[in-house]
Amino acid sequence: MFGEEKPVGVAVLGLGNVGRELVRIIEDTAGDLAARIGAPLALRGIGVRRVAADRGMPVELLTDNIEELVTREDVDIVVELMGPVEPARKAILSALEHGKSVVTANKALLSQSTGELAQAAENAHVDLYFEAAVAGAIPVIRPLTQSLAGDTVVRVAGIVNGTTNYILSEMDRTGADYARALADASALGYAEADPTADVEGYDAAAKAAILASIAFHTRVTVDDVYREGITKITPDDFASARALGCTIKLLAICERITTEQGQQHVSARVYPALVPLTHPLASVNGAFNAVVVEAKAAGRLMFYGQGAGGAPTASAVAGDLVMAARNRVLGSRGPRESKYAQLPVLPIGFTSARYYVRMYVADNPGVLSSVAAEFAKRAVSIAEVRQEGVVDEDGQRVAARIVVVTHNATDSAVSETVAALADLDVVQRVAAVLRLEGTGP
Amino acid sequence: MFGEEKPVGVAVLGLGNVGRELVRIIEDTAGDLAARIGAPLALRGIGVRRVAADRGMPVELLTDNIEELVTREDVDIVVELMGPVEPARKAILSALEHGKSVVTANKALLSQSTGELAQAAENAHVDLYFEAAVAGAIPVIRPLTQSLAGDTVVRVAGIVNGTTNYILSEMDRTGADYARALADASALGYAEADPTADVEGYDAAAKAAILASIAFHTRVTVDDVYREGITKITPDDFASARALGCTIKLLAICERITTEQGQQHVSARVYPALVPLTHPLASVNGAFNAVVVEAKAAGRLMFYGQGAGGAPTASAVAGDLVMAARNRVLGSRGPRESKYAQLPVLPIGFTSARYYVRMYVADNPGVLSSVAAEFAKRAVSIAEVRQEGVVDEDGQRVAARIVVVTHNATDSAVSETVAALADLDVVQRVAAVLRLEGTGP
Repeated sequence: MFGEEKPVGVAVLGLGNVGRELVRIIEDTAGDLAARIGAPLALRGIGVRRVAADRGMPVELLTDNIEELVTREDVDIVVELMGPVEPARKAILSALEHGKSVVTANKALLSQSTGELAQAAENAHVDLYFEAAVAGAIPVIRPLTQSLAGDTVVRVAGIVNGTTNYILSEMDRTGADYARALADASALGYAEADPTADVEGYDAAAKAAILASIAFHTRVTVDDVYREGITKITPDDFASARALGCTIKLLAICERITTEQGQQHVSARVYPALVPLTHPLASVNGAFNAVVVEAKAAGRLMFYGQGAGGAPTASAVAGDLVMAARNRVLGSRGPRESKYAQLPVLPIGFTSARYYVRMYVADNPGVLSSVAAEFAKRAVSIAEVRQEGVVDEDGQRVAARIVVVTHNATDSAVSETVAALADLDVVQRVAAVLRLEGTGP
Repeated sequence: MFGEEKPVGVAVLGLGNVGRELVRIIEDTAGDLAARIGAPLALRGIGVRRVAADRGMPVELLTDNIEELVTREDVDIVVELMGPVEPARKAILSALEHGKSVVTANKALLSQSTGELAQAAENAHVDLYFEAAVAGAIPVIRPLTQSLAGDTVVRVAGIVNGTTNYILSEMDRTGADYARALADASALGYAEADPTADVEGYDAAAKAAILASIAFHTRVTVDDVYREGITKITPDDFASARALGCTIKLLAICERITTEQGQQHVSARVYPALVPLTHPLASVNGAFNAVVVEAKAAGRLMFYGQGAGGAPTASAVAGDLVMAARNRVLGSRGPRESKYAQLPVLPIGFTSARYYVRMYVADNPGVLSSVAAEFAKRAVSIAEVRQEGVVDEDGQRVAARIVVVTHNATDSAVSETVAALADLDVVQRVAAVLRLEGTGP
């Protein structure tokens, strides 16, 4: 039925979990994909670092000559699943310059070089799709760029990193400390040998940059994203969170902020935050991802599913591949980069949130008053204070723990307050400063 | 910046809540929309049944001559928000035949005439978008047609009618009976004066037909959808549901079913079902909608948000409008109808589910055995039975209530069993037959 149509040539770069699943989908569902595209897909080659016979793939498809593969005449679409920024960047730019449409899941690259890649796609009049770069199988790029194209997005807040969500869920569930939860995650394959990119929030920050760019029609790079990781979260933080009816989640938050002068700004930030148990993101556990989008007309939407893993990520890549192939067959093009708004990025100091501050102080009368005075001096309004004695092994009161929850305050005012508190003689230690999210209307 | 581009002419048909919100979006965010489209939108006219001066709209835009409006030379896109099947069908066909792209939220029309409308759009090489027809602001059409274009959708299950979900949520929360919950919903504007389309499941069935069509690349009309409404649900059903750890939701379910002979079928059905409280759909309350999609590679995805209301629906319509306008400017086209699979629709009798059957029987020894025998005769396997005495006002045991929960069984086997039970002398009444959904893996 479709045999007479000229096939759409595909090159796949990278043969990890996602690449293998994608090749499986292309082979196992060839008839369905051909019917949806209007022409069959033809897998022209698979770019790998080193050609080896034991990969369970037809060895004649494998090549380590990426440049030759992506510029082949019979390749129409290049799917980049190699991983690091280089050599992926070079391969993608070369493919685009040679008129190939590109599908990529490379969030690190996209969050550094969106502009460069988008411009190259624009110059060549081809598609650049990257649904799989954020939240795996969960459609978020397409809903933001297309479904909400007529609305005004106000805020995007998501759990977009499965590794940290698994670790935090385990800490909450079992009372384990960070090190043990990380070890468990590694043992189960949920954390990489070097977990830095996940636990320090770099991965989530890259996704926040991509989400902010498309939600606000503004180029936002990973360097614009404020970032805190989860390595300092303790069981005490979870105990305090529970006492406040919350759990702790690593959130990527992208916000449209209108200043008092009426100027619009963008804020993009990643940090662990206290989230009320009644908030939809609180019940997103384990390796799952979820993204909440708030738009002026649509209200609050939530998208939920598997944010990582070979098959789910390959599903998102395959969707992009089919759309890019359809466009080839029809002579159409999908949505391009929209960056007309170019809103300035608001530095973290000017953003507001509610804060939770936990500190240990001398167990003397008058200490609470001194602590409260430091908040008041910087106009940080306190919503709630709890003070309780801390006893040593012999049952002696040796200190008091004070937990302060503020009303909305700017990051800079809270930072100054915390620095001043740390300088007070009566304050032994400011043990934790975390934001509260999702407590608003 | 965009003033030199030729504007994209828009005609809006219907000026209810959604139409008004759409016109507001077109006017209030004209600059943003123009930047996203690459040309400004120009509202050419608004079709209404009767032109009146008090609508708060520029009266010169209003017209009751729909045919003239949709065929105007300077109209590129027609947005149909009039409501009933006719005259919407005629207006849309006329618009398509005259080369206009069409955006509609008309689920009743789409679920009767998808094929006819899609063919007309195909003949004219224009777009036919209908994101707003299912689940209001929640993107489901685009994720199914585009994001999952490379995957194999297995099942779509959703709460897609806000009126019935509000009524069932209230019955669950307050213990009210159906009539009172319906009256409350009407008083709050959640139910229409004639609630038949909602409470009898017609609206949900229309959406199920649309979802099944796009999920399975098969034309499914509303006549193919099995349908039960919620009017017979009682507080006793909710009490039983709670005892089983469940609540009751009106679900639209679309399934790909492979028979023992290996043949693929589609099933589309709407009915109230017991849903475990741990299932994500159980916590979707009030007027909210949610759709769970299960695909082979992606796994389980959930989409959640406001399924009705002027502004949320207008958001979805505006997204379609922007995409259709962009395609006009770029000379592109969006995805077309995909109906290559043409899977046969499986009659309800052949579909399987777990069942909950509640009946009142004579309070005699041996009754349970007779009841169980009727299930066994038709190979319906029982998972759980509860029997308890029912007392009258004087505290006298007058009957026994038996609740049976089955393992998976075909609808026809259960229907026959229920008919046989009703014929038994010892059975006073079979009070409820409901399916259990979401109890599987």
